[in-house]
Amino acid sequence: MKLWSKVFGRPLKDREEESIRVGVIAGLAVMAPDALSSVAYGTQEILIELDRAGVQALWYVLPISAVIVLLLIFLVTSYRQIIRSYPGGGGAYIIGRDTLGSTASLIAGAALLIDYTLTVAVSVTAGVAAVVAAFPELAPWTVIFSVLIVGFLGLVNLRGLRESAQAFALPTYLFIAMVLIMAVVGLSVHVPHAPAWHMYVTPPVSFVSLFVILRAFSSGSSALTGVEAISNGVPVFRGPSPARARMTLLLLGLFLGSMFLGTSIIAYRFHIVPSLDTTVLQQLASDIFGRGIYFYLLSFVTMAILAIAANTSFAGFPLLSSIMARDQWMPRMFLSRGDRLVYQNGVIILALTAILLIVIFRGNTTNLIPLYAIGVYMSFTIAMLSLAVKTWRNRANIPARQSWLLIVMGGVGATLTAIVVVVSLITKFTEGAWIVAVVLPLLILGMHRIRRHYRAVADELRVTDLSIKPVLLHVVAVVPINSINRLSIDTLSYALSLADEVIALHVVRSVEPGQQFAERWKKWAPDPRIKLAVVPTQYRSVVRPIVRYVDLVAHQNPEQRTLIILPELVVSHVWEHFLHNQLSLTLETSFIFRKDISVMIMPYRLKSY
Amino acid sequence: MKLWSKVFGRPLKDREEESIRVGVIAGLAVMAPDALSSVAYGTQEILIELDRAGVQALWYVLPISAVIVLLLIFLVTSYRQIIRSYPGGGGAYIIGRDTLGSTASLIAGAALLIDYTLTVAVSVTAGVAAVVAAFPELAPWTVIFSVLIVGFLGLVNLRGLRESAQAFALPTYLFIAMVLIMAVVGLSVHVPHAPAWHMYVTPPVSFVSLFVILRAFSSGSSALTGVEAISNGVPVFRGPSPARARMTLLLLGLFLGSMFLGTSIIAYRFHIVPSLDTTVLQQLASDIFGRGIYFYLLSFVTMAILAIAANTSFAGFPLLSSIMARDQWMPRMFLSRGDRLVYQNGVIILALTAILLIVIFRGNTTNLIPLYAIGVYMSFTIAMLSLAVKTWRNRANIPARQSWLLIVMGGVGATLTAIVVVVSLITKFTEGAWIVAVVLPLLILGMHRIRRHYRAVADELRVTDLSIKPVLLHVVAVVPINSINRLSIDTLSYALSLADEVIALHVVRSVEPGQQFAERWKKWAPDPRIKLAVVPTQYRSVVRPIVRYVDLVAHQNPEQRTLIILPELVVSHVWEHFLHNQLSLTLETSFIFRKDISVMIMPYRLKSY
Repeated sequence: MKLWSKVFGRPLKDREEESIRVGVIAGLAVMAPDALSSVAYGTQEILIELDRAGVQALWYVLPISAVIVLLLIFLVTSYRQIIRSYPGGGGAYIIGRDTLGSTASLIAGAALLIDYTLTVAVSVTAGVAAVVAAFPELAPWTVIFSVLIVGFLGLVNLRGLRESAQAFALPTYLFIAMVLIMAVVGLSVHVPHAPAWHMYVTPPVSFVSLFVILRAFSSGSSALTGVEAISNGVPVFRGPSPARARMTLLLLGLFLGSMFLGTSIIAYRFHIVPSLDTTVLQQLASDIFGRGIYFYLLSFVTMAILAIAANTSFAGFPLLSSIMARDQWMPRMFLSRGDRLVYQNGVIILALTAILLIVIFRGNTTNLIPLYAIGVYMSFTIAMLSLAVKTWRNRANIPARQSWLLIVMGGVGATLTAIVVVVSLITKFTEGAWIVAVVLPLLILGMHRIRRHYRAVADELRVTDLSIKPVLLHVVAVVPINSINRLSIDTLSYALSLADEVIALHVVRSVEPGQQFAERWKKWAPDPRIKLAVVPTQYRSVVRPIVRYVDLVAHQNPEQRTLIILPELVVSHVWEHFLHNQLSLTLETSFIFRKDISVMIMPYRLKSY
Repeated sequence: MKLWSKVFGRPLKDREEESIRVGVIAGLAVMAPDALSSVAYGTQEILIELDRAGVQALWYVLPISAVIVLLLIFLVTSYRQIIRSYPGGGGAYIIGRDTLGSTASLIAGAALLIDYTLTVAVSVTAGVAAVVAAFPELAPWTVIFSVLIVGFLGLVNLRGLRESAQAFALPTYLFIAMVLIMAVVGLSVHVPHAPAWHMYVTPPVSFVSLFVILRAFSSGSSALTGVEAISNGVPVFRGPSPARARMTLLLLGLFLGSMFLGTSIIAYRFHIVPSLDTTVLQQLASDIFGRGIYFYLLSFVTMAILAIAANTSFAGFPLLSSIMARDQWMPRMFLSRGDRLVYQNGVIILALTAILLIVIFRGNTTNLIPLYAIGVYMSFTIAMLSLAVKTWRNRANIPARQSWLLIVMGGVGATLTAIVVVVSLITKFTEGAWIVAVVLPLLILGMHRIRRHYRAVADELRVTDLSIKPVLLHVVAVVPINSINRLSIDTLSYALSLADEVIALHVVRSVEPGQQFAERWKKWAPDPRIKLAVVPTQYRSVVRPIVRYVDLVAHQNPEQRTLIILPELVVSHVWEHFLHNQLSLTLETSFIFRKDISVMIMPYRLKSY
């Protein structure tokens, strides 16, 4: 118990809730890494797609990044609006539920849950990949490192969100500073063969197909994943939560936009061609600052930000799943909050699923990224569409200019994000996007079944008529006994006190000892309500005949209740456990799966000797 | 359940016992591999020790091997005698117990149990090492391979001994044939620079210290480990078991002696110098037959025989531990025989301990061998000393010549084997023999504590006075309830039928809902024997307040019995489990560790919907 407190911190009372919430600075450290870390691969994903169409095509990184930043502006504005309307969090799921109905909200919710899981897997493996790029000799450890990091994140988050915010503030802000500095320096230093200013705005002659552009846009838009996190986790912020959350989202948008656009522009300026060996950020750092301290520090901080990007999911998943569990779409266990006021089951399930994914995909990020963006963009589409629809319905109560702005922005945003979903699904279908197309419907189906189950159970258990009262039942207790000793006498006493009938069950391997025991029993002559049953066995195990006998008793008298009482010796030292109770343990396990028979475990304390 | 039967075979009845026993041919395949496989390293161990004193010293392999074979003759004769006297098995432990008393028998028994465990670890890793010698690229997999083989052996032995005998007969007899053929061919082919005949009997001039000789003798005597196995496992043979066991032991002695002596002689004839890369057997095979099919087949068969040598332990350990458990020196669980008439707990514990050893020693056999021989030789010493003492005591009833033969042989044998124990302990103390010197006393101490515990418990539970009868107790049942519904009504009904008092325990997080519930309860007005207790909590979890409340109830009324009744929803599908019962499960676990309170699990079957 003490070790538990050391690892997870002391139990918190309900009224301490406010103390574990965060402000804007810490909130950004928890909620932003997911989005910010996208800078580590966003530009790179665009360049990889464009590079396939030739080096000349790399220019298109500029307009594509510009469109993505425009989309970012739409998203930030929309989600700030959503936070205002839904201060309880839940983002796309909640606004979808209220505006478009349960199907849309389930798609958004399920997609986000999938996405949070993928984020953990993608981020951590990408972080490890960044380290491996700097120290290639670590390559064989990729999977193990990744799994360990996920486990560590899980543990920290079981302590609480505030704790993880404090732990991760430094790398977050360091990453922001280093990328921004690199962008500024990269724009200002002299570069041989740097493109002239007009080249930034004039497309090169080479023809690039719309398909390549769309594909590059879809890939690059993974840079915006994580922007939704704050809207889901509004309750994480200290009051007034919505105001703090909106402020944090605004800051996030500013940082993310400038870092992403800056990276794309200097990547073009430095003629960066994507490579298999190093990341675009590393190429830039090495071109601008050389392969020195800045390079290695940036590599390290990138790893850190990628790994703690996963932490954003640990903030989002448990909250969203608890909100969905409250609506009965998810198992009730996601509703229970542990000692540290954390929805601990969400944290645990998230960590385990992510570890499973990492192991299945063998730590290869690129295989996971197609899966990753689709879910977020589905939720983006639903959120923005909901916002547009909601504003349209409410347009009477809102100033016309503001409502039209929101409707147009929601509509254009929904269209752009829907394009990303469709293009990603089509182009990356065989690369793994099919998994989303399979898992998402299955998950939604499962959620429907969960809700149906809960409703059916609730209907069955509901009592409206208060005239239904507890009644007396006829109870038969079975007590397996080996010999007449203090333990069996005490067990029989308990059984006699509880039940209407008691059967002392004695299993024998041959006839003679059975007769001997029956005679001894007769001589002993306990209370006549206790009947002796001597059962033969052809096997060594007494478990099988006991289970069979009790089943028979229960089956023959369906109107009565059958109870098996298993004594358990309580010993003074832990090691002494291994000397006893093998039978009770086996019987307990057997009966817990029988489902018709109640099992009672009766501790019997031995005197110290 | 079906899969279980597929893997482990159908359950066997008690009267089928005879059908699972083995004859001489199959018995040799189970019982001999341990001893026979020693040929794979016995000669080599001698050569390694002698080589330290210079190449000239290698000659001493001949007289040392001769002494070891003499010792083998003593051992086979003695153990055949022991089998005759103790047809129930148990070997050194049993004869030690009857002749020298419990301390000697415990030393022999504990030493053998340690040894069986070490045998599994040593044999399997040595087998894997033999394969790795042939295919060096497998080196990094040594530990994993070894663990898998131990796991496989455990599974086969859970099916039964006969099964493993059938599986392992081929490699055993193939190994015997191949080594004997190699010895014969090796003695007859022309070898350039072969030593002249007189050189086999004349010591070379070089002086070799007695210490080196003793050390080489001790190391080489590891070749005899495993000879005791048959005496421990006599009941494994079909009736008349002792006759079959004695025959098997005689055959084992003949094969082992000729193979070991043959290997040592041709090793001298071929001027084999021990090497780190290959084994002596492999060097001989490659010198005599070239690096062809014979070499690879022998390497493979050596691996097989080494791995299945471990199987001998799987025959010995469970039997010996069951015999010692019957004498209350070991936990009772070693007495229980499973569906396949196997002492399955012995098999499982043996496999797990061996796997632990392999992992700790990282699959390096040589580190384990010093530990390995000491235990067997302790049991040899005790067995032969017991035989001498027993014969001396019984000399009136035995023909004088036979009794003197047994006494002298027992005495000399005990001295020789004691020398091995002492020399091994001294020379290999720092290399790991200290572990035996630490573990053996601890194990014996543990066995004494186990017996003391069993006796104390038996004394405490024993009832001689049959006037002690079951009596009626006052029982208070606590039922945690969340709301008034069919489930809680049924649970309360059950509680009311069982107990004298029932407390319905309702946990609330704030005052108001508690009052509401109390009012609803008042309106409902169930049986007055059911009292409602509303308990506030400052934490989310209801587990803590429930445990605290029940503890309080139990503490305040020490003369009455307290029972907590936990309902468990029985659902139609497995996945639905995850939607319920979280609370019952947690409470069950909490209370099973409380030790003062009985826990009853009441299944509540939901209607299908």
